[in-house]
Amino acid sequence: MNVDGVPYRSIWLDEDGWSVRCIDQTRLPHAFHVARLTDLEEAARAIEDMRVRGAPLIGATAAFGLALALRTDPSDAGLERALERLSMTRPTAVNLAWALARVEALVTRLAPPERAAAAVREAQRIADEDVARNGRIGEAGLKLIRAAADRNPGRPVRVLTHCNAGWLATVDLGTATAPLYLAHERGIPLHVWVDETRPRNQGAGLTAWELGHHGVPHTVVVDSAGGHLMQRGLVDLCLVGTDRTTAAGDVANKIGTYLKALAAHDNGVPFYAAVPSASIDWAMADGSAVPIEERAAGEVSHVTGRTADGRTETVRVVAEGSAVANPAFDVTPARLMSGLITERGVTPATREGLAALFPERSAGRADKGA
Amino acid sequence: MNVDGVPYRSIWLDEDGWSVRCIDQTRLPHAFHVARLTDLEEAARAIEDMRVRGAPLIGATAAFGLALALRTDPSDAGLERALERLSMTRPTAVNLAWALARVEALVTRLAPPERAAAAVREAQRIADEDVARNGRIGEAGLKLIRAAADRNPGRPVRVLTHCNAGWLATVDLGTATAPLYLAHERGIPLHVWVDETRPRNQGAGLTAWELGHHGVPHTVVVDSAGGHLMQRGLVDLCLVGTDRTTAAGDVANKIGTYLKALAAHDNGVPFYAAVPSASIDWAMADGSAVPIEERAAGEVSHVTGRTADGRTETVRVVAEGSAVANPAFDVTPARLMSGLITERGVTPATREGLAALFPERSAGRADKGA
Repeated sequence: MNVDGVPYRSIWLDEDGWSVRCIDQTRLPHAFHVARLTDLEEAARAIEDMRVRGAPLIGATAAFGLALALRTDPSDAGLERALERLSMTRPTAVNLAWALARVEALVTRLAPPERAAAAVREAQRIADEDVARNGRIGEAGLKLIRAAADRNPGRPVRVLTHCNAGWLATVDLGTATAPLYLAHERGIPLHVWVDETRPRNQGAGLTAWELGHHGVPHTVVVDSAGGHLMQRGLVDLCLVGTDRTTAAGDVANKIGTYLKALAAHDNGVPFYAAVPSASIDWAMADGSAVPIEERAAGEVSHVTGRTADGRTETVRVVAEGSAVANPAFDVTPARLMSGLITERGVTPATREGLAALFPERSAGRADKGA
Repeated sequence: MNVDGVPYRSIWLDEDGWSVRCIDQTRLPHAFHVARLTDLEEAARAIEDMRVRGAPLIGATAAFGLALALRTDPSDAGLERALERLSMTRPTAVNLAWALARVEALVTRLAPPERAAAAVREAQRIADEDVARNGRIGEAGLKLIRAAADRNPGRPVRVLTHCNAGWLATVDLGTATAPLYLAHERGIPLHVWVDETRPRNQGAGLTAWELGHHGVPHTVVVDSAGGHLMQRGLVDLCLVGTDRTTAAGDVANKIGTYLKALAAHDNGVPFYAAVPSASIDWAMADGSAVPIEERAAGEVSHVTGRTADGRTETVRVVAEGSAVANPAFDVTPARLMSGLITERGVTPATREGLAALFPERSAGRADKGA
């Protein structure tokens, strides 16, 4: 999408044909900086440090990282080491394991000298497919936005989103934002409520930034405000992303998503998760089994931002001596959601709904999961 | 309660017998600074700028502020001006109007020369009564904590609280924290989950600070984390405060309280609001009618904290150019709460429950409210 009027992806192969460029999202919204990744460790740290984040983008970055690793050591042992290093970077996102397994399955059949080139081509395919898939999610979700517009003629469709499931969280277009960008491009008036999304402020820093650069009207509110907005009838639709979706349609997403789903359910506001099929963990039957990443306390106790005179400063906001916990995700039960928006269309958030859309993936799993 | 081992109130009459001392809460948790209020405007601004905040403390401060105003101009016109100035400072807290009306009713009967002295005595009575009332709320709530301890022998009672309904929000002891301080003093093992409470971080900055100074074990989490903690069985009880309670038991409290109540309800976790009777608006039947204060955008877009080298800095966290909304309160419907803890005991959050505890206040109101 556009940054200062210029179209960008969040990750791309450099003109040199081997190194990888990505937008350093830790420096947004205050500075737009493109980082260069040249080896396994740089790619792994880019994921760990959340210079790249968002389940689909993590998957693409891991694939590119594997390709970088294989340039240095294409042996079976090197492949194994790289897979181990990359898979440890973020435990919750199922796309990470999915993308690594896909590249591994390809290169493991090849002679070591052919592996790096094949891996980089596969990483690019993963990136291109992500964009195409998000386009299909956008088209499917657009129908929900059109329906909301038809219900409320003469005013913008008011959409609440949490965290950043935007183009920055994917290779381009985004998952939860794909319907928004398509609606905006097709002239449907929109207004997006952007949750701040503590502790890393991905709403205020990333979603607001990308919507602003693309010209989509929006307002930032604290994470706690969504329930009040829904109570007062100011939200027509909630759209969120997912880091991992169970076969039963439970959605693990950024901490706080569950609270918004409860509020939407309590107020009769439609609540949808944008679910690329790569985020579906067909082997996982029950949302309570999703591993929840506990991240560093410093993300909660400290906040980084820009001073009035343009310096970047990190300030402590938690009282000295107080303990901090930082669970990064929660699980929204399928029962609270109106549906899931996949690249094959919208389905109820049920085992049957997902299985009907993805029969080739769910086959033989239903019994195991039941 | 204790600060560095020394007992404090949040507001008190200076030794000079007329000026007012209060803890400047905008400088917590990083600096402990006692401010001095000497006239109407200083008192009004202390409330507006949230150097003092919390419904009961706002009431006490307004009463002291009126006393300060009457020192300068004890005429009827001066009284009228002071009432107008102070009542505009924070629209949601019903205690503000209640405390002002109480002092007004007293001084309006007196000759102007007697008014200032009478007002300061009345403000002190309001402050003393607040502390006594909180003690009774503490005793009533202590039974709920004892019950939770009995249900789960051998481990701490895990309580989640939102915002700061602590001693800093009152004159002393707090409302939601009163049961916690009493339980702690009586040797019941406790662990408090402290919500960060954006946008002003009153959980991380005030509740964590006061619990820490008084030695109560606690952990800070972001506002979005409470639902997850309850899903995973890590919360035994939720205790929050209130800024305004309707006759039907709906509770207007800091933005995000409603979301925690939804999560508690969804997970079978008991959820109680500590409700001093002064916060009950007997004339207000329906929570949807509670006026919700919209505060300055800068509270959301900027965060103030302490740098590693000890400077206080304010940093921008929201993308430049993005609009911000800042509703400060939401309304938790009575149906989501297990009960209300008042100075006369615990009652179901119902019109009948409140009316039975406060027959003298609710008389003749039920029809009007129904």
